[in-house]
Amino acid sequence: MASVEFIKDLCTPALVVDLDKVKRNAEGMKERCQKLQVQLRPHMKTHKTLECADIMTGGSRRCIVVSTLAEASFYADNGYDDILYAYPLPFDKVERCAELSERLSLFHVLLDNTLALQELKKRPLKQGKVWSVWMKLDCDNGRAGVPHYEPAALQLAQEIWQTEGVELTGVYAHCGNTYSCQGEEQIKAVAQQTTTVTLQFMDKLKAAGIHSTKSSIGSTPSCSHPVPDMAKLSEVHPGNYVFYDVQQSLIGSCRLEDVAVRVLTRVIGHYPRRNQLLVDCGWTALSHDGGGRLPTGYAIIEGHPELKLLSMTQEHGRVEPVSGKLDFKQFPLGSLLTLMPYHACATAMMHPVYFVHSKGKIVDTWKPTRGW
Amino acid sequence: MASVEFIKDLCTPALVVDLDKVKRNAEGMKERCQKLQVQLRPHMKTHKTLECADIMTGGSRRCIVVSTLAEASFYADNGYDDILYAYPLPFDKVERCAELSERLSLFHVLLDNTLALQELKKRPLKQGKVWSVWMKLDCDNGRAGVPHYEPAALQLAQEIWQTEGVELTGVYAHCGNTYSCQGEEQIKAVAQQTTTVTLQFMDKLKAAGIHSTKSSIGSTPSCSHPVPDMAKLSEVHPGNYVFYDVQQSLIGSCRLEDVAVRVLTRVIGHYPRRNQLLVDCGWTALSHDGGGRLPTGYAIIEGHPELKLLSMTQEHGRVEPVSGKLDFKQFPLGSLLTLMPYHACATAMMHPVYFVHSKGKIVDTWKPTRGW
Repeated sequence: MASVEFIKDLCTPALVVDLDKVKRNAEGMKERCQKLQVQLRPHMKTHKTLECADIMTGGSRRCIVVSTLAEASFYADNGYDDILYAYPLPFDKVERCAELSERLSLFHVLLDNTLALQELKKRPLKQGKVWSVWMKLDCDNGRAGVPHYEPAALQLAQEIWQTEGVELTGVYAHCGNTYSCQGEEQIKAVAQQTTTVTLQFMDKLKAAGIHSTKSSIGSTPSCSHPVPDMAKLSEVHPGNYVFYDVQQSLIGSCRLEDVAVRVLTRVIGHYPRRNQLLVDCGWTALSHDGGGRLPTGYAIIEGHPELKLLSMTQEHGRVEPVSGKLDFKQFPLGSLLTLMPYHACATAMMHPVYFVHSKGKIVDTWKPTRGW
Repeated sequence: MASVEFIKDLCTPALVVDLDKVKRNAEGMKERCQKLQVQLRPHMKTHKTLECADIMTGGSRRCIVVSTLAEASFYADNGYDDILYAYPLPFDKVERCAELSERLSLFHVLLDNTLALQELKKRPLKQGKVWSVWMKLDCDNGRAGVPHYEPAALQLAQEIWQTEGVELTGVYAHCGNTYSCQGEEQIKAVAQQTTTVTLQFMDKLKAAGIHSTKSSIGSTPSCSHPVPDMAKLSEVHPGNYVFYDVQQSLIGSCRLEDVAVRVLTRVIGHYPRRNQLLVDCGWTALSHDGGGRLPTGYAIIEGHPELKLLSMTQEHGRVEPVSGKLDFKQFPLGSLLTLMPYHACATAMMHPVYFVHSKGKIVDTWKPTRGW
């Protein structure tokens, strides 16, 4: 494969990444954050590669978010620092978190309950270091975090603040509820609501004598369409924006032409009796994300709005027209089709290597880290 | 992780494989095939590891099926031979197939159309070798293959038979339509129908003067409940049976206690206001396969039929009771839950390493091959 010069000549299925779009998406987010004067702490979970992280951090190799400890170790091993492991502190991984905290100048953990704080107290850091803790606030997203309106939220912050060997570095909220938005207006309403309740909580902290605590909210939709009040936050932490995907375009985070990733696939069979093609992209190359609920099924087939990726098995995809008869002559055996994934994070996860190109010419291969 | 002795001490999420069940499932399939006097050619797609392949082949390292060329190369590199790449010949991979054919004593390709045969003719094998070809017959499954009732089926077989440098080694059918069965009786009906039409096609071949061609059908449901007529086939090629899963138990292929794989996960959050737990298993560790349509959602939580894995994001799973109020005291933060996957092939695909145990004690780690 090393000798292949153009993505059109790759063996399929293959994940291809448009480097120009990646850079443009990264630049756009940096500019929005600079305009707001808010620190961008990009999330690595979508791609999990060193090269894309370098683009997102502008080569600083500082100030990132990760979703797994495997990512944290991978980036730490490659000279990254100021890494926020934005995941409710898992009790089985405290020792590994302690080692990273001792090894890096800044490694941050996140928690949303008092028992997690007890776990940190049981493992004081060496070398006079203190645990850097972000408290997860649930701003109506309904996943992890203490609900912002509960007295328990301020109580937990106070407890972290008062605990020896532990520092309350920041308050962290994920507005994943932007994923049910349609259009910029709705996204901005959620971004505003998340920002407002986060800032209100910061005010409560100050009133309780807790100062110099950072605030951070994130999600690709909200950070693609930020509201002016987000300037009052310390940081934002989007991740998917570097690739974007069909889902983000439907939400209204991006235009379809901003989507930087594709799965290349080839036609491997003609079945006129069923009015179907088979392609060599199954769920091992695309994932089942989205559940096939797009009008075009599990993906958008670029340049062919008349086609639908109806279903997938492990290594096969069934393609048929949205309506009418398929013109098989248009899609000879061996010909390429280009799939725009519904969810780039889920699709990228299926690939051990990404083929990176500029205008179709392969310029690099990126290898993601995996596991936990 | 190397120092962990018991699966209960693994960092989560983790895929664990019960070696005793794997051996029992493998033994059961071998016995059924011996009784039928039919050659077992196990499929590697579910696990893609060397160690499990050794169990399925009884250490012979011969006579396997693979779903990708990456698997074929992986097994060839590890001393395997007689490898059937049971996938409609992809035109972009003919050269790689040729190299494997020249390197191994037996490497088989599969095709279902005349253009694929032309591709083989364009690349004659060196060293006086001939391409070993299996023809894919569609026995009412509706994926790849020439429909068994079409005159094109016999025509293609004749064309392969007559082509220089190419040998018609066998006829291959996948009865994936057993996956919509419920119970042994329905499975046996599909197994019988697939066997009958395959054998009828073999008779047509003989009548046309095409002799000593093998026949093979497969799917885990049909081979878990074979019908006597399957003794008239040359081979069968099931794969999932070595692990089984919740889906197979619902179809009626196995009992729930035969399922050899689990995803271990831990409780990372209590959210009484939503009546929910969070666990550290998202779709990166389980896959979205099954679409959450089980009464217990995306998986069965072992020992807790009252719980449902309602939804997953990348690294989080939401668990709630099937009905009523959750007793949070039963599930302290950090405690383990054990998930039985809906589809073992899809879940195994998400893991870079499998932890293999006997009665909870880790005895091995298996690393699957990935990619294409």
